Amino acid sequence: MSVITVGTMAFDTIETPFGKAEKIVGGSATYVAYAAGNFVTPIQQISIVGYDFPKAEMEELKKRGVQLEGVEIVADKKSFFWSGKYHLDMNTRDTLITDLNVLADFNPIVPNSYQGAEFLMLGNLSPNIQLSVINQLKTRPKLIVMDTMNFWMDIALDDLKAVLKKVDVLLVNDAEARQLSGENSLVKAAKVIQAMGPKFLIIKKGEHGALLFHNNQVFCAPALPLEEVFDPTGAGDTFAGGFIGHLAKTKDISFENMKTAIIVGSAMASFCVEKFGAGRIKEITKADIKSRLEEFVELANFEIDLAY
Amino acid sequence: MSVITVGTMAFDTIETPFGKAEKIVGGSATYVAYAAGNFVTPIQQISIVGYDFPKAEMEELKKRGVQLEGVEIVADKKSFFWSGKYHLDMNTRDTLITDLNVLADFNPIVPNSYQGAEFLMLGNLSPNIQLSVINQLKTRPKLIVMDTMNFWMDIALDDLKAVLKKVDVLLVNDAEARQLSGENSLVKAAKVIQAMGPKFLIIKKGEHGALLFHNNQVFCAPALPLEEVFDPTGAGDTFAGGFIGHLAKTKDISFENMKTAIIVGSAMASFCVEKFGAGRIKEITKADIKSRLEEFVELANFEIDLAY
Repeated sequence: MSVITVGTMAFDTIETPFGKAEKIVGGSATYVAYAAGNFVTPIQQISIVGYDFPKAEMEELKKRGVQLEGVEIVADKKSFFWSGKYHLDMNTRDTLITDLNVLADFNPIVPNSYQGAEFLMLGNLSPNIQLSVINQLKTRPKLIVMDTMNFWMDIALDDLKAVLKKVDVLLVNDAEARQLSGENSLVKAAKVIQAMGPKFLIIKKGEHGALLFHNNQVFCAPALPLEEVFDPTGAGDTFAGGFIGHLAKTKDISFENMKTAIIVGSAMASFCVEKFGAGRIKEITKADIKSRLEEFVELANFEIDLAY
Repeated sequence: MSVITVGTMAFDTIETPFGKAEKIVGGSATYVAYAAGNFVTPIQQISIVGYDFPKAEMEELKKRGVQLEGVEIVADKKSFFWSGKYHLDMNTRDTLITDLNVLADFNPIVPNSYQGAEFLMLGNLSPNIQLSVINQLKTRPKLIVMDTMNFWMDIALDDLKAVLKKVDVLLVNDAEARQLSGENSLVKAAKVIQAMGPKFLIIKKGEHGALLFHNNQVFCAPALPLEEVFDPTGAGDTFAGGFIGHLAKTKDISFENMKTAIIVGSAMASFCVEKFGAGRIKEITKADIKSRLEEFVELANFEIDLAY
């Protein structure tokens, strides 16, 4: 069961109240691949990097079952670079530098070897790029999951709406759900957004967990309360990787199984924030994941006798 | 299994984006009694009202198994009055008027007939009043639950700390947990607060649900996502009433059963916000409660195969 992931592979310089990490490997597709690779292979990566992207990182990804045929390497340009600084509460951040570099020319070509993939994860990118990938697939995947952000709602809303018509699951945060729908109530927002295309809507609320909406059903997943959030960078992409990894592994895209997939995504995200960048997500074992999932069962499970 | 509740019985004038309700019956003890009375009787009320508090409301409470021997009626003063206006997001409000009236003289006397109660719910009041009630009880209740607010942390922190040493469960919101502990991380805050006395800490997060901390265990209860929050007044007290009502009904104060009690409290609170004041909480039936609890099971439950 293969999963195509489309997104950035990049360098990040990150400052948090706990310290600073200079030019470490990041990017949405990197996080998705490291997370999803724990559950399913191959991960078929579509991205673009410059001459400076570490060969060792590419080898590490390959060892984990990530195929890189769809990753274009531009010989005379640098990789995408982002630099940001988190505020004390870790919920908000300022972008200090965005050097698009190779990303300005990103025009993804889906390799023939990727055709037939049953799962597609569209990382946060220009809606035109996301649409181009969908249109290149000869067989529609069983499930298309899409991430986006307020930036595209501001500058490319019509393009974004065109992609929304073609995807099954949309991932946004609560402020973005409100912006996209024009509704303050998340329940109302979910109805408006489902009418735009995606039959499933996941609203990420950071430390407050995540909500899954589908028709009139709703599921609320907790976030694991942590002593410290060391670095939130990549947590959303890691969540997405765990989510689609679980669905691809189990080949079940029912609402009930999406509940479980959201718990798996939340568990993966809870690792991500424990160290700078992808540091933690690269070192965890299957035993770590199992143990963290057990924590989520304890965290959210309750017994109730409804014969009150 | 009797429950003593101590708190206000009052009039509120409430303005929300949906309208205005003038001088309706409110007060923490009123909400606790209406909520808890669904699960256990008698509820033994300790409060103070003026000549203007409606006799019909007292009769309604009595019909539901609420004993009022501990409610002092002051013949020549008015009842406590509060007026507030909610902001558009419904998460914040401005207090417009606080007329203490009879509350300025509240010096509760625990009636002999209340002695031996196994559960005590201390509503948000001056810590001195809360302590006085504890000290009047000849047999320590099986469980003492205490609500408080930032106001008492600002002006009576030492008194508050004296009460904290004597209670089992503290109910506060996230901002209050941070203020009381001096810790931003709620996990760290929970450790600091447990060291102050209460072995169980419930942190209410409004639309984001509630957390229960005990030793190194944590439980996360969702709030039901609602199309509209009509009026949040009393939701915290209704939560407390459902919580202690379930515990008193089941006579089980284990961590596992407190998880369930928090779900019951959350379900009761989700009714409270549907109408102005106690309007909704007074009209619901046992069948409504059962159906709402089923919604919470759907909302929070997930299946996971840990033999991954």
